Amino acid sequence: MDSLTSIRASTDKLEILNQLLLPHVTQYEEITSIEDAYDSIKGAPAIASLAALAVSYHLTRAINTSPPPHFLSSPIALKDHLNPILSYLFSARPTAVNLGAATRRLKKTLDYSITSGHIPEKIAKNLVAEANAVADEDVGRNKAMAKHGGDWLVNCVDNAGEDNISLNLLTVCNTGSLATSGYGTALGLITYLYETGSLGRAYYTQTAPYHQGSRLTALELQTLQIPSMMICDTMVGSLFQHHKIHAVVVGADRIAKNGDTANKIGTYNAAVLAARHKIPFIVVAPISTIDLEITDGTAIPIEHRPAIEACLARGTLYPSRGKPEQALVMITPPGLDGVYNPSFDVTPAELITAIVTEKGVAVREEGETCFDLKNIV
Amino acid sequence: MDSLTSIRASTDKLEILNQLLLPHVTQYEEITSIEDAYDSIKGAPAIASLAALAVSYHLTRAINTSPPPHFLSSPIALKDHLNPILSYLFSARPTAVNLGAATRRLKKTLDYSITSGHIPEKIAKNLVAEANAVADEDVGRNKAMAKHGGDWLVNCVDNAGEDNISLNLLTVCNTGSLATSGYGTALGLITYLYETGSLGRAYYTQTAPYHQGSRLTALELQTLQIPSMMICDTMVGSLFQHHKIHAVVVGADRIAKNGDTANKIGTYNAAVLAARHKIPFIVVAPISTIDLEITDGTAIPIEHRPAIEACLARGTLYPSRGKPEQALVMITPPGLDGVYNPSFDVTPAELITAIVTEKGVAVREEGETCFDLKNIV
Repeated sequence: MDSLTSIRASTDKLEILNQLLLPHVTQYEEITSIEDAYDSIKGAPAIASLAALAVSYHLTRAINTSPPPHFLSSPIALKDHLNPILSYLFSARPTAVNLGAATRRLKKTLDYSITSGHIPEKIAKNLVAEANAVADEDVGRNKAMAKHGGDWLVNCVDNAGEDNISLNLLTVCNTGSLATSGYGTALGLITYLYETGSLGRAYYTQTAPYHQGSRLTALELQTLQIPSMMICDTMVGSLFQHHKIHAVVVGADRIAKNGDTANKIGTYNAAVLAARHKIPFIVVAPISTIDLEITDGTAIPIEHRPAIEACLARGTLYPSRGKPEQALVMITPPGLDGVYNPSFDVTPAELITAIVTEKGVAVREEGETCFDLKNIV
Repeated sequence: MDSLTSIRASTDKLEILNQLLLPHVTQYEEITSIEDAYDSIKGAPAIASLAALAVSYHLTRAINTSPPPHFLSSPIALKDHLNPILSYLFSARPTAVNLGAATRRLKKTLDYSITSGHIPEKIAKNLVAEANAVADEDVGRNKAMAKHGGDWLVNCVDNAGEDNISLNLLTVCNTGSLATSGYGTALGLITYLYETGSLGRAYYTQTAPYHQGSRLTALELQTLQIPSMMICDTMVGSLFQHHKIHAVVVGADRIAKNGDTANKIGTYNAAVLAARHKIPFIVVAPISTIDLEITDGTAIPIEHRPAIEACLARGTLYPSRGKPEQALVMITPPGLDGVYNPSFDVTPAELITAIVTEKGVAVREEGETCFDLKNIV
């Protein structure tokens, strides 16, 4: 079965998956305007691809409209129309490194096409091609990461003299096709190992409080029919005590120059437990996640979410009569105000065995407590 | 405000709290028969006290009935009536150390009273007194543990030269008055520190999958107005990175001779993280939890629960119309069969700083990797 995809783009339709309804309802919603795209970027994963595809669809529709809209009347009219749109889309998530890179890249293509003296329709077509390339490259980067990391892991085990490679991996949160625009990062690596016959079983944590593991990773692995097992966040240590786990693979939200990695809350728990059990701990993330301006993890800002969000569980209610429905239940007493709810934690580089990007695998040197990522960016 | 209590015993009524309805509904259910008690013991905490109190109420009612029931007609009739009841109550949870000790103790009192030549009513009254003592001693033991452990902890910090003792403690699961018949074990220690003015703040984990922390510990701390903060199970490491935590205090289900401790799943995660952050890790449990027959933790059997139970979250639903109601929601896709769901994990003694019982505090010797609990039992 095909993997679930967060963005569905056909020749005449751009749709995004309503992830709040998962895992019980798979409902796509059409993006019909730049405003729709802006609203979706505010909450969606794969935001750079979504912004690029939204621009692509907007221009494709304009090219195919007769008579053409006013903004295709001259290069200047097109520039005056598009630049505010690109700034507007970027403003939906101004701290997102990828989104900024994508919108800057499209502005650059626009400027270059104009100075090259093309007619408006040709400029628009250049932009459509560039925007589609942004989305395609995203998938390509994920696949490159998966292959680099997967082959490296298999090789590590191969060196240990085993014949039939069958790796059991633990991952946290969701880093698959639902969280990225294509193949996924850490979950992409797991998928790659499965496709190449080297995966034993994928384990994943529920990842409280938002349960991206039990809602999204569970659904992706189930859809792809990859052998898998869910564990509660309380069970990571127990899993390591009782099951052979060859590596922990996680994504990253931001990686400092020395390799300290901010990722979904619970990643640091898993890293400390992996270190105790001498299990390799692998970060899989695109180069764009590495921020050389940040020397180490202490400088990475951590978002804290409202208390109430950790007091709720989202799930499906099976009423005694009628159809199943989405529901939020409160799992705490009412009025609980003392709640600690950071979205991310920082795993120090000394606990990370390797960082996998689309360019290859950076392995921490024996005896070193950090990476120097300057050379791989 | 009084603490919540799992068993409410007045002069003419024995009631137990329906904990499945917590934290939103506090509903006590009367135990009117030995069969009620048996059913409750199957699912309840504080089972030894409950069994003893059920026998106590059964006999008190008989003594006050006119004409007296047949089993008060002779010592032999009483023995023939009571011995099967005690065996029946024990059979509700035959692996429970405390329950076995309580029912054996009442059988012994019965035999001793009979051989002493008392009349049936006097024998029954002796049994009522002994049964009430079983329940009272349970509370007394908890209070002794809390004081031993609390004073020792304060002393540790005192030695570090601080003036105003204000300890921040993390606990897991629920070990308070709801889980025990009285003051609690680890949560009793926290309550003691609060009552003696030495507590800063109590932190507690949600404790997936059954959320005893966010349902029960949250409610107990809220009821007692103890400064507290809930964290998700994913946040233990992050908490240690960003907040000053003086100790982790946990209960125990079973402790091996060398100090290896089986406790609620997630305890081992917290112990490994505490060790990394050099935070003392304290086990608080009655002597009866120590099993000298078990040399180390590898011999402790671990109960695994059905997959479905880790796929559900119990909480309160606030419908758009009508009253809030209890609900179970499924937080995973339907049909998920790959689920790891052990109820307990084993924390090795080398990660445990001290074991607190009603007899005092056993501190692991510097440089030793285990305890020898033979001498304290």
